[in-house]
Amino acid sequence: MIPPNQGEGPVAFQDDYPDDVAHCYGCGRLNAEGLHVRSFWDSDGRSTIARLTPDEKYMAVPGYVYGGLIASFIDCHGTGTAAGAMARRESEAGRDADDPLSMPRFVTASLQVDYRAPTPMGVELVARGTVIEMTDRKVVTDVTLTAGELLVATGRVVAVRMPEGLLP
Amino acid sequence: MIPPNQGEGPVAFQDDYPDDVAHCYGCGRLNAEGLHVRSFWDSDGRSTIARLTPDEKYMAVPGYVYGGLIASFIDCHGTGTAAGAMARRESEAGRDADDPLSMPRFVTASLQVDYRAPTPMGVELVARGTVIEMTDRKVVTDVTLTAGELLVATGRVVAVRMPEGLLP
Repeated sequence: MIPPNQGEGPVAFQDDYPDDVAHCYGCGRLNAEGLHVRSFWDSDGRSTIARLTPDEKYMAVPGYVYGGLIASFIDCHGTGTAAGAMARRESEAGRDADDPLSMPRFVTASLQVDYRAPTPMGVELVARGTVIEMTDRKVVTDVTLTAGELLVATGRVVAVRMPEGLLP
Repeated sequence: MIPPNQGEGPVAFQDDYPDDVAHCYGCGRLNAEGLHVRSFWDSDGRSTIARLTPDEKYMAVPGYVYGGLIASFIDCHGTGTAAGAMARRESEAGRDADDPLSMPRFVTASLQVDYRAPTPMGVELVARGTVIEMTDRKVVTDVTLTAGELLVATGRVVAVRMPEGLLP
C-alpha cells in the first residue's frame, strides 16, 4: 500500500521497512490512518527529501498547520534518513542491498523543532535532511522544512537503532 | 464538545480557548478528529497535569506509542500550561477571570523531546508541566511524561503569545 503523490522515486526508505515494523503512524505503509511519510535521496545523492501536504484536520488554528504534525513529519523524515544512510553504509560494506528485510530500523532518541514561521495549510511541505553525525548505532540528522519559498521549521533528530527485543 | 475521561476538573485551560482558535488537532475542542488534550492545575496548584490514552492507530511499532504522538501531547500540554499560567497571572493583576474570551492563546516557538523509554500502548499517559520561565509574551514549560511508574519522555516547550493578525 503505497499512497500516491508523496514520492519522487519508486522506492522510499520506509517502503523497505520489514512488515513487522511498518505500522508507524507517521511513516508506516501498513498504517491505514497514518501520514505515510516517504523519504528519498535527493537529486544531489547526499541529502534526503520528503513531501507532505497535510490533511485539513491537522490544523493549529484555521489556515495553519499544527505544530505536532510538523514535529511528526520531521521525526519520521529523520528516522527514515537514518535508515537510508545506514543501509547505504552497510551496502558499501558488503551488505546485500537487494534484501529489503535488512533495511535497518531506527527509533527516535531526541527531537528538537524550532518553528520559524506559521505554516500555511494547503501547501506541499518539503522536508530536507542532512546527516551530521553517524556511528554504528546512532544517526543525527538536521532537517529543514519549507512551504514553497518559506522556511517554516528546522529540526534535529537523534535516531538510534531499534533496541533488540523491542518487538514481542 | 468535551470528551470524557480525559480530565479531572470541570474546566481545562483549553476549554476556555475562544471558538476561533479551538480547532487545534492536539487540543482543540472543536476538532472532531483530534486528540483533545486537556490540561489542568495539578493538586499542588502550581504544576499542571494532562492525561491521554492514545488510540491504537498512533503506534510506532506494535505495542508501542508513536513518538510524534508523544511530541504532540507534550506540545499541547506546554502551550496549554502557558495559557493557564498567563491567565492566572493576568487574573491576579485584575483581569476578569470569568471572561473565557480573554484566555490567552499561545503558539509553540520550540519543542524539545527526549525519549527515555519505549512507551507502552494501552496505558494512560500522564503529562506534568512546570513553568520554568515566564515573561509577558513567553512561557517556558518543562514536561515529564509517565506511563504508570515508567518515565517515558521529558520535554521543554517554549510558547509565545499568538501573533496579532495570525487569523484572517
